[in-house]
Amino acid sequence: MSILAVGSIAFDSIKTPFGERDRVLGGAATYFSLAASFFTDVKVVAVVGGDFNHECERIFLERQIDISEIERIPEGKTFYYSGEYGYDLNVRRTLDTQLNVFANFKPRLSDASRHLPYLFLGNIAPEIQLSVRKQMRNPKLVAMDTMNYWIERTHHSLLEALREIDILIINDSEARELAGEANLIKAARRILTFGPHMIVVKRGEYGAAMFTSDSYFATPAFPLEDVFDPTGAGDGFAGGFMGYLAGTGNMDESALRRAIIYGSVMASFVVEEFGCDRLRRLTYGEIGARFKEFKAITHFEDIEFVHRAL
Amino acid sequence: MSILAVGSIAFDSIKTPFGERDRVLGGAATYFSLAASFFTDVKVVAVVGGDFNHECERIFLERQIDISEIERIPEGKTFYYSGEYGYDLNVRRTLDTQLNVFANFKPRLSDASRHLPYLFLGNIAPEIQLSVRKQMRNPKLVAMDTMNYWIERTHHSLLEALREIDILIINDSEARELAGEANLIKAARRILTFGPHMIVVKRGEYGAAMFTSDSYFATPAFPLEDVFDPTGAGDGFAGGFMGYLAGTGNMDESALRRAIIYGSVMASFVVEEFGCDRLRRLTYGEIGARFKEFKAITHFEDIEFVHRAL
Repeated sequence: MSILAVGSIAFDSIKTPFGERDRVLGGAATYFSLAASFFTDVKVVAVVGGDFNHECERIFLERQIDISEIERIPEGKTFYYSGEYGYDLNVRRTLDTQLNVFANFKPRLSDASRHLPYLFLGNIAPEIQLSVRKQMRNPKLVAMDTMNYWIERTHHSLLEALREIDILIINDSEARELAGEANLIKAARRILTFGPHMIVVKRGEYGAAMFTSDSYFATPAFPLEDVFDPTGAGDGFAGGFMGYLAGTGNMDESALRRAIIYGSVMASFVVEEFGCDRLRRLTYGEIGARFKEFKAITHFEDIEFVHRAL
Repeated sequence: MSILAVGSIAFDSIKTPFGERDRVLGGAATYFSLAASFFTDVKVVAVVGGDFNHECERIFLERQIDISEIERIPEGKTFYYSGEYGYDLNVRRTLDTQLNVFANFKPRLSDASRHLPYLFLGNIAPEIQLSVRKQMRNPKLVAMDTMNYWIERTHHSLLEALREIDILIINDSEARELAGEANLIKAARRILTFGPHMIVVKRGEYGAAMFTSDSYFATPAFPLEDVFDPTGAGDGFAGGFMGYLAGTGNMDESALRRAIIYGSVMASFVVEEFGCDRLRRLTYGEIGARFKEFKAITHFEDIEFVHRAL
């Protein structure tokens, strides 16, 4: 089943200890839709400027992502972000942010889009997330991301948006901040009372965890010796997670767990190269092999141990 | 098979956001041996002062831990440590350290101890670890712990000790520091070239990982809503890990993975209460149930996904 993905398309200038790249195509909607496109049909809702050229379009079209509802403002410029990672790739320093056309992003969905069954609300202002959510006609599943910026500055509208969604996909530290609770397990339980039926916590190099009111699942991350550029990992994760769920149409516990693993698989590929490079040349064989590797590195046999007699 | 455990016995004064306790029995050898005693026989080598009384002895003896080679210095005082945790329980602030009798600890093993098959070298000066290691007669398995203090101040003798052991059990950040490498996977690979055949990395609330030259296994931690006192978690982990291996006498990949889970199980109990309180009233039923819960929260089924046709 199809996913509607709403979020940013950006040009990113990224510096890491391993190199730098100027103005590569990025943004939450880009990473999400590329990752999800391996599993299901995806339509992107975003806004771009005149600098979004055919080469940019091609990155979406070669994965048959529907870009017909990307709003184009020829006289404007696409959202621009510049950041730098140190050797601790968990910490990013922002050098420059130019919202450009993104500053006035007010998506109006087509009638066809309103009837799509899966909705992903990338990390944008909660009022926009809520407005998009309200335009949808009875979606089967709605997931959203957010970040510390919105938690701190638009707390009230963020809580409003949370009441209208099914799954919150959020970073570890941001889950703690949102809940005002240092213990992650307690933080997730508290966020569950805000509206979502499920919290998916992204923990970077430590993996991911999934909480509902009556279940818990966690996985370590795929062990990578070479993380080139962490940009987009979280959105690639969300794309793999939701793409798999939409692709199967199934949402039982067993499918949700596999979705967490496919999310982790896609995130692990995203960070192996700069920007979208790795996703563009990714194959189904590679995805399937890494899924199996996840099983190989996390499963263990349950054999009764012999108690020591005292 | 029996384990010889060498390390500190201490009185700890610990303050956490949830309360404080003065002069509770602690130290690496204490937590390790209590945890390991659920799986196999343990003999402790340590040094204590005249303040180590019958009540302290009883904590070991009620788990039938052999304390006959604990050196007693009646006119001296036992190692004393005082520390404080904030709401981020990953960070501890040391308030006071009094080495006391521990300052001159130079263990001389009995002939019986030299022939024990399993040796655990708790976090003490590398020269002492090496001296104990050299007194052993052909042990089947030697594991050791260390910390940033020794990595920074006694680097050379630490490298010497590492050449003589099988398994290094170490914290995440200390593994990176020891290897001089920010990426944990690369750090572990580098440490494997220093001597140990296996590196077990403790990641606190994020779980644990195990590296050999040709295998990798990782687990998240048990999800605890109430972590009361993280003191001793790492040594409780080591005790469960090595206790299980010695208890079964088996060291194949499958047993090593279960040992990591039993280590994680024991660590999760240690932090539920202050000091050794939780380990003292722990039952085999609780250990077995939590092991099964680990499987329930980490395992997933591998079902072929349907590729999206492009």
